[in-house]
Amino acid sequence: MATKPTETITTSQDYRMCPRFEHATQLLGKRWTGLLLDTLMVGPRRFCELTATVEGLSDRVLSDRLRELESEGIIERIVYPQIPVRVEYRLTEKGRDLRPVVQAIHDWAEKWILLPQALDGNNTTEEEEL
Amino acid sequence: MATKPTETITTSQDYRMCPRFEHATQLLGKRWTGLLLDTLMVGPRRFCELTATVEGLSDRVLSDRLRELESEGIIERIVYPQIPVRVEYRLTEKGRDLRPVVQAIHDWAEKWILLPQALDGNNTTEEEEL
Repeated sequence: MATKPTETITTSQDYRMCPRFEHATQLLGKRWTGLLLDTLMVGPRRFCELTATVEGLSDRVLSDRLRELESEGIIERIVYPQIPVRVEYRLTEKGRDLRPVVQAIHDWAEKWILLPQALDGNNTTEEEEL
Repeated sequence: MATKPTETITTSQDYRMCPRFEHATQLLGKRWTGLLLDTLMVGPRRFCELTATVEGLSDRVLSDRLRELESEGIIERIVYPQIPVRVEYRLTEKGRDLRPVVQAIHDWAEKWILLPQALDGNNTTEEEEL
């Protein structure tokens, strides 16, 4: 019978008084946000590099996500005053601190998420040249 | 100038060929799912215990989330054949393996997410008696 709690984590008792956790999960769970953060962990990226790398992401949605992440203080927009002007997006310290979260999700997904194309073995329709 | 990638994580190169990461972030980011997982990390819970603990969660939405998590193999529904019948939801091994993810989000949110009521100091309107 598994009627008794068998495991605890120290912070689990706090969530009713503290919606931080819910705020964070919803922020991270928005479509594309996880992949954007994952991409920016590698280094700063220009707008066009992000659309090229994150397949299926439209300019409009990318703009929305970048604006949201910027307003949350997770990324910053760097403008290099050259001609033509160069704009890059990079993680702030708050954003870089998400590395353990991104890595933990990666580890879990690698272990547990099975996809039809993975089972097929060699379905590479989602790949394209950069 | 921060035009060169300065950091890498080993799995970041894979996402274009592997949507596991995106699947995982979207799953975890659905409203209430994070809090439900957080609650179930403590131990198995009955339906009514979940609605009582996760404030603002309606029966209909809870049903949807539990069904989704069950279909993903993250939780299981345990029926105890007694009168009245007792039904509990508990994490599977796949679900328990999300502990590092939940903990990493907790750690990040505790450090970085500031809320208006936290700034007010003692706004406890979201608390209620169980």
